[in-house]
Amino acid sequence: MAQALFEKLKEYKDSMLPMHMPGHKRNLALSGPGGYLEALCADCDITEIAGFDNLAEPEGLLLSLKKRAAALWHSEEAYPLVNGSTCGILAGIFATVPYGGSVLVARNCHKSVYHGLQLVNARVTYLMPEQERTTGIYGGITAESVEAALNKAPDAGLVIVTSPTYEGVLSDMEGICKVAHTYGVPVLVDSAHGAHLGFGSFAKSAIECGADIVVQSLHKTMPCLTQTAMLHRSGNLVCGEEIQSAINMFQTSSPSYLLLASIDGCIGLLEERGEELFCAWQEALDLFYAEAADLKYLSVMKAEQMSGLPGGTAKGEQKEPVSRENSKIVLCTAGTNLTGPELMQRLRSEYRIELEMAAEQYAVAMTGMGDTKESLLRFARALKKIDETCSKVSMKEIRCPALPVARLSMGEAMHAERVELRLTDAIGRVVAEHLWAYPPGIPVVVAGEEISEELAAYLSEKRKQGVELHRKNGMCKGELLINVVVDL
Amino acid sequence: MAQALFEKLKEYKDSMLPMHMPGHKRNLALSGPGGYLEALCADCDITEIAGFDNLAEPEGLLLSLKKRAAALWHSEEAYPLVNGSTCGILAGIFATVPYGGSVLVARNCHKSVYHGLQLVNARVTYLMPEQERTTGIYGGITAESVEAALNKAPDAGLVIVTSPTYEGVLSDMEGICKVAHTYGVPVLVDSAHGAHLGFGSFAKSAIECGADIVVQSLHKTMPCLTQTAMLHRSGNLVCGEEIQSAINMFQTSSPSYLLLASIDGCIGLLEERGEELFCAWQEALDLFYAEAADLKYLSVMKAEQMSGLPGGTAKGEQKEPVSRENSKIVLCTAGTNLTGPELMQRLRSEYRIELEMAAEQYAVAMTGMGDTKESLLRFARALKKIDETCSKVSMKEIRCPALPVARLSMGEAMHAERVELRLTDAIGRVVAEHLWAYPPGIPVVVAGEEISEELAAYLSEKRKQGVELHRKNGMCKGELLINVVVDL
Repeated sequence: MAQALFEKLKEYKDSMLPMHMPGHKRNLALSGPGGYLEALCADCDITEIAGFDNLAEPEGLLLSLKKRAAALWHSEEAYPLVNGSTCGILAGIFATVPYGGSVLVARNCHKSVYHGLQLVNARVTYLMPEQERTTGIYGGITAESVEAALNKAPDAGLVIVTSPTYEGVLSDMEGICKVAHTYGVPVLVDSAHGAHLGFGSFAKSAIECGADIVVQSLHKTMPCLTQTAMLHRSGNLVCGEEIQSAINMFQTSSPSYLLLASIDGCIGLLEERGEELFCAWQEALDLFYAEAADLKYLSVMKAEQMSGLPGGTAKGEQKEPVSRENSKIVLCTAGTNLTGPELMQRLRSEYRIELEMAAEQYAVAMTGMGDTKESLLRFARALKKIDETCSKVSMKEIRCPALPVARLSMGEAMHAERVELRLTDAIGRVVAEHLWAYPPGIPVVVAGEEISEELAAYLSEKRKQGVELHRKNGMCKGELLINVVVDL
Repeated sequence: MAQALFEKLKEYKDSMLPMHMPGHKRNLALSGPGGYLEALCADCDITEIAGFDNLAEPEGLLLSLKKRAAALWHSEEAYPLVNGSTCGILAGIFATVPYGGSVLVARNCHKSVYHGLQLVNARVTYLMPEQERTTGIYGGITAESVEAALNKAPDAGLVIVTSPTYEGVLSDMEGICKVAHTYGVPVLVDSAHGAHLGFGSFAKSAIECGADIVVQSLHKTMPCLTQTAMLHRSGNLVCGEEIQSAINMFQTSSPSYLLLASIDGCIGLLEERGEELFCAWQEALDLFYAEAADLKYLSVMKAEQMSGLPGGTAKGEQKEPVSRENSKIVLCTAGTNLTGPELMQRLRSEYRIELEMAAEQYAVAMTGMGDTKESLLRFARALKKIDETCSKVSMKEIRCPALPVARLSMGEAMHAERVELRLTDAIGRVVAEHLWAYPPGIPVVVAGEEISEELAAYLSEKRKQGVELHRKNGMCKGELLINVVVDL
C-alpha cells in the first residue's frame, strides 16, 4: 500500500509511449545530461528564501524570468504560473470583470472559465461555434459572430475564446481582436494548448494576433513540468497590477521551485535551441502525417480539413474555412467499425501507446517538443496495423442539440432554491447547476438554462453511448438526476 | 542567462543548512535509496491518464490516498491539494460562506484568508489575539473571546483561526470548537504549520480538537514537496461535496503527479515508519533545546514561555497561558545588541545557515522531519558562537497599535470610488485597500478601516525600522501612499 502511486509511476514510465501531455514526453535527454528535466528533484525543492525572489512580487530572478518569457512570446508582460492555466483564467476574469459584469464567452470554453464567471457572478452572452457533423468537434469563433454579440450586449466588458482547442482548432484571433478593440473591449484567450504557437512553422499565436490576455499551459506542449503555465498581457485595456493581484489570490503563496525551475529551464532551452527543436518537432510531425496518409479506414485530420469532412458542418457549410494547428493529431474513426474509445484501447493494449483522449467518433493524440521521429513513426505504424484490421461501416452523424434557452443568469440559478429531479421530470425546468459531457468537457447545459425535450433525449442517448455526464458533485451514476430551480 | 534559476538551485543545495521550509530539508535519505524524494523527477511527471485517477473526482488510487490521509490524521475526509494551503483556505471559505455572509476571523490570519473573505464579500468580525510585548508575537485565541464574538455577531456562519501560527503559537482549539459548535457554527483552522501535530509527542492537532475544516501544508514540516497540502473535513456542519466542488474551482485541472506522488510517498513513510521518525525528530529537538539552554544574551522561547517573558503581554497579563509547539524554534534577540534580521544575516554569512524569517526582535527557525541531531546541533553551536559575541542592551517594547475602527465592510471599501493619498494626508480617512507588514505578514489596516493618527505614526516608525509594508500592488517604495475611499 505504501507509496502505491510512486510505484505505479515508476512502472508506467518505462512501459508506455505517451501520446498525451506533458509535452516533454519524459524525454529527459532534451535538456542534456544533468539538465533540468533529469535533475530537478527534492534536493532542489526550496521555498521563497533570500536570493530566490518572491513570485507574488518578483524583483530579481523571477522578474528576469518574466521578462525573458515576455521577450520569447512577444507579449508586454508575462506571469509564470504554478497552478496551471486554471489559475491564469480565474485571474484574468477576476482582474477584468466587476461583480455582476457582462461577458461574451465561447460556449466551448474549459471549466475554469465557467468557474471564473461564477466567481464574479457574470452575465453571459455565448459565442456558439459550429460543430463538425461526424465528430462533433467545435469549429472556430468568427469575428462576425463577436461583432454581432457585441452589438447585442453592448455592456460586455470582456470577450473569452479558446484557441487552439483540445483538437487544435484555431479561431480567427486577429479578426476577433480587431473587432473587440474597436469596441474598446479586451480579449482573453485560453491558449492552454497553444504555448508552441508562433514558433517555427507553427501557426501565429493569440499574442501575435493582438489578444490582451493569453493563458498558456507550458506543460501541455513544451518541455516543462505539469501544472506550469504562463499568463501574457499586452495592450492598454488590461492593467498589469490588477492581473498580478488576482494571480496572488488564486495561486499558492508557497510556490514550488521545481515547477519554477522547469519554467526557467524550458525558457533557457527555447532561447538557446528553440529554432532547432521546433524544426525537429515539425519534421517529426511531417513524417507522421506522410506515413499516415495512406490509412484506408481511419483518417487523420489535416490542418484545413474540418469543413471538408463528409457531411460538412452540423448547421450547413461553414462560411469561414476552419483552420487547425497540426501538433494535435486528430484520428477520425467515423465510417469505420471502431469508436474513438475502442481505438484508444487497442493502441494501449496492443501497442503500449497511450492517447490523450477519445470521443465517440474520434481520438486525439498530443505531440510535444519531447517527441521524436522514432516515437511518431512508431505511432503511425501502429495506426496502420490497426487500420488493416478495420472495415467500413455507414457514416453516422453526431447529434448536436441547439444552445439551450437561458431563463435566469448563472448566478441567480446557482443561488436559487432548488430541488433534485429525475432528468425526465425536469423537462421545461430551469437547471440550478451545470451539466458537462466528457469528452470533450464542454457544458451541455449551464445553470439558468432550460432543459428542453430535445436536450433530455440527447443526454439520455449520450449516456447510452458511454459518454460521461458530470454534475457539480462528480460523475453521474445510476439514474440521471439534476437540480432545478424551484418555481417562483 | 539560460537556466539561471536551475543553476542557482544546484549551487544553493550543497552550500547551506536549511532552517526553513520545506520539512524534508533536502534529506533525500529519508525515503531510502531510489525512494520518492530522490527519484521523483520529470520521468515520473504525467497527467491524469487512464489508471492514474482524477484528482477532481477521485475513484481509484487518489481515493485510496484520501482515505489513507484521513486515517492517518483522524479526520473524516481528507483532500490532497497541489496548490498549497492557499487553495484549501479559499475552498473552505467558499464552500461555507454565502456571498455577503458573516464570519468571525482571527486578525492574525494569513493573506489567503483575507482573499477568501474578499471573494465572498464577507462581513467580518475580528478575534484579536494579545501580542507579546518584546517580540510582538501574537498569542492564541481564547474560547471566551469566540463566545463573546458569537454573541456580538449571532449571524456568523464560520469561525476562522490560525493554529499553530508561524511562531508555533497554539490557540485553545478544543474550547473554541466546543463553543462554536454550541452555536451550530463550523470552525476552519489554518494549520498550515501544523501537519505534524497529533503525532509522536507533538501537541494535539486541530482535527483531534474537533475542528470542522483543517488545512495543513504538507511541505512545511513533513517530507513532502513544496506546494502540497491537505484539507481535512470532519463533523456534519460542513458538506464534503461543497468542499470538493470549491477545491475544483481553485486548483489546477492538470495536477502534477510529482506533487501527488510526494504526498503518497510521505503518507507511505508515515504509515510505515512514522513513530520512529517523529521520535527521532523530537529527540533532535530536545538535544537542540538542551544545547541552547545556556545562551546568555539570545534566548530560545520555550513551549509555555510567552506570557512569562519580561514585560508580559502588551495589554496586561494574559488570562490563559500561551502554549507553543516546539518544532518552531523562536530566537529572541530582545535585550541584545542584535536585531532579528542581523541574527539571520550572521547565521547566513558566518555559518551557512538560512533561517525561515526574522522580525524586529526575534527570528524563526523551522524544523522538519528531515532534520537530524547533527543539523540541529550544528545550528545550536552556531547560535552559541554568536551569543558569545553579543552584549546586553536595555529591553525595548514593541508598539502594538489598537485594532483600527471599521467604517465600511471590506467589500464596500474595495469597490468604492478611491483616491490615492500620502499616508500623512490620509488620517481620519477610510482605506480602500489592505496594508500589510512583513514580517510577519499580518494586515495592519484592512479595507474599510480608518487610519488613525496613532496608526499613521506606527506605520512611519515601522518603515524606519526596515519593516516592509505591502499594498495590493506590491511593496511600498518611496513615499508611503494609500488608496482611500472618496468621501460620500
